[in-house]
Amino acid sequence: MIAETPKPPYYAVIFTSVRIPEDESRYAKMANKLEEMAKQQNGFLGIESVRNDLGITVSYWSDLDSIRKRKSQADHLLAQKMGREKWYKCYKIRIALVERDYNFEN
Amino acid sequence: MIAETPKPPYYAVIFTSVRIPEDESRYAKMANKLEEMAKQQNGFLGIESVRNDLGITVSYWSDLDSIRKRKSQADHLLAQKMGREKWYKCYKIRIALVERDYNFEN
Repeated sequence: MIAETPKPPYYAVIFTSVRIPEDESRYAKMANKLEEMAKQQNGFLGIESVRNDLGITVSYWSDLDSIRKRKSQADHLLAQKMGREKWYKCYKIRIALVERDYNFEN
Repeated sequence: MIAETPKPPYYAVIFTSVRIPEDESRYAKMANKLEEMAKQQNGFLGIESVRNDLGITVSYWSDLDSIRKRKSQADHLLAQKMGREKWYKCYKIRIALVERDYNFEN
């Protein structure tokens, strides 16, 4: 689903990752939990996620402070679940200010 | 592949789309052509792309002017190939300034 975000400006967190092939159901559980937690957080605007060999998850946030809170919450959960380092071969996180957007719908 | 981008700041174009189920080979040809054109353009820094039901393509650029040139080049190609409107049910394009990034590699 394409996230229905408000008018810019707002923030995007672009999380690009390559997974370690591992227990799929445990990973899915962890990923779902992380998404549920995000949705309940202040400042959360939406999320878009696709995975093949590469995974791209973009979450949208009203401000940097919400992103910081999100990060500490995610770090806490992942610490309990052995950390991102056990799930991913590599990843890159980019924090970006969305300045403009365009829509098209058929 | 995770794009190897330089130190921020730089720009990201987040293109999220839902396709119209259509001739796969024609679409793939068009998409490859668009990617080839991007790679040859000034200011192009990298691209990440994944598709399932949803598609997310994030391309990275040094500045807004390069993004504008990219857009007019893509519009020109797509005009010849019947336009984005024939390929996509809906899409959203977000232009965002990447302020920070973090890497992890196992």
